[in-house]
Amino acid sequence: MTVFMAGEQLQSEGSMSPPHQARLAYRAGLADSTAGVAPGFVQGNLAILPEKYAAAFHRFCQLNPKPCPIIGMSDVGNPMIPTLGVDLDIRTDVPAYRVWRDGEVIDEPADVMAHWRDDLVAFVIGCSFSFEEALLADDIPIRHIEEKVRVPMYRTNIPCTPAGPFAGPMVVSMRPLKPKDAIRAVQITSRFPSVHGAPVHIGLPQSIGIADIAKPDYGDAVTIKPDELPVFWACGVTPQAVIAAAKVPFAITHAPGLMLVTDLKNKHLAVL
Amino acid sequence: MTVFMAGEQLQSEGSMSPPHQARLAYRAGLADSTAGVAPGFVQGNLAILPEKYAAAFHRFCQLNPKPCPIIGMSDVGNPMIPTLGVDLDIRTDVPAYRVWRDGEVIDEPADVMAHWRDDLVAFVIGCSFSFEEALLADDIPIRHIEEKVRVPMYRTNIPCTPAGPFAGPMVVSMRPLKPKDAIRAVQITSRFPSVHGAPVHIGLPQSIGIADIAKPDYGDAVTIKPDELPVFWACGVTPQAVIAAAKVPFAITHAPGLMLVTDLKNKHLAVL
Repeated sequence: MTVFMAGEQLQSEGSMSPPHQARLAYRAGLADSTAGVAPGFVQGNLAILPEKYAAAFHRFCQLNPKPCPIIGMSDVGNPMIPTLGVDLDIRTDVPAYRVWRDGEVIDEPADVMAHWRDDLVAFVIGCSFSFEEALLADDIPIRHIEEKVRVPMYRTNIPCTPAGPFAGPMVVSMRPLKPKDAIRAVQITSRFPSVHGAPVHIGLPQSIGIADIAKPDYGDAVTIKPDELPVFWACGVTPQAVIAAAKVPFAITHAPGLMLVTDLKNKHLAVL
Repeated sequence: MTVFMAGEQLQSEGSMSPPHQARLAYRAGLADSTAGVAPGFVQGNLAILPEKYAAAFHRFCQLNPKPCPIIGMSDVGNPMIPTLGVDLDIRTDVPAYRVWRDGEVIDEPADVMAHWRDDLVAFVIGCSFSFEEALLADDIPIRHIEEKVRVPMYRTNIPCTPAGPFAGPMVVSMRPLKPKDAIRAVQITSRFPSVHGAPVHIGLPQSIGIADIAKPDYGDAVTIKPDELPVFWACGVTPQAVIAAAKVPFAITHAPGLMLVTDLKNKHLAVL
């Protein structure tokens, strides 16, 4: 299996870059949320699987690019992902991990040195932090940031295309927006296909299987004002949910909200 | 006043192009709707004003580009607009006209040879036919075409920026779409800023001053299904409504649905 080339330019300054500094802090034991860390730089969801399952999972991501946009990938057994960052060691550089056996979390360590194996393949999947930065830069307010909670996420009735043992519904994140801002948000996020791209739904949550918008399946509920529409984006929780449901014998992910901080720049992910 | 250069390439084939053929038929007296005529070619709304009012109207269009995107303009007193078409004579080449005095329609002639004056300036304004073609080409169904009626249009509470005597609310056209198609329609129509561009509103008609979606102010009502959202675009009826409200002593427009057929190609209007 070859290394996935993200095609993005790496930070290569003489002085240490903010994401590199952050990764070294996490490597040294810091286990904080990465929200707001190294502004301007891409953060990613992490999924690590044995080679036996990696090809099927890779195919799952290929078939479901909106919830599972791959921005980087390791070679088999190689914990370094140079396309995503200088000196980036996927075993140590995420603040906290979840180790899964048969669909259950069995450990939440600060590094996975003790769990690493020569047959593991790491996938790094784009995250909404990147497009949220672009929305904020365009003066579009983001409710869960205003209300200082986690983004609300919902299981939908939108099926992902299955691949091997990996199957299940798409999970979406929701941001309430004024219709004018929703239209602008479609334009802005369409420029960022590698971090979930354009919304998958606007305005009629029941039609995608969301019974109660006030009760997210993950994250926290947020206020939706009368002059706002709920706008839904495919969410990087989808691959984690799918890995859990597949009950593969062994997997590693990041702990929720504690992402991999890469050297890629958000603005370089824009296709236009 | 200089001639506006649309910057679009003209049809310059040896044989006569479909839009040129259509214009000659209208010049000879045909007064049919231009819906479906010369597919692929841009059609435009027409507004002709005395030079005394033309500068203010031009400024109004400049200030309100979504409802009033100018795709062509004549020189003062010159009825030919070569940037929009071979041999295009704005006095004869539209199927039917409306002649206005003090805000009232006083004549609906097949040509305006008898009304032409040396101080008149013609404005040609982009029309939704162009972006509808792009939507249909992307397999997005358009309800009023399916139901064989005119597009529903509504006066809103969105104020246009006034200029001189020209002022008033934006008029919008409405197409009901499934949310997924609405998102795609934002992407597609964003590529066409010179024919109204992206929608101005989605989903909450009352918040833009539309009391009853079943009662359009112009055109015909269409079915909105439970799994659809009403999607609103700025409409070329806005400048006509504004000219009527301004009660200028003299103006000429096209008759509704009987547009100017130009030699510009819809696909060339795409900015991406």
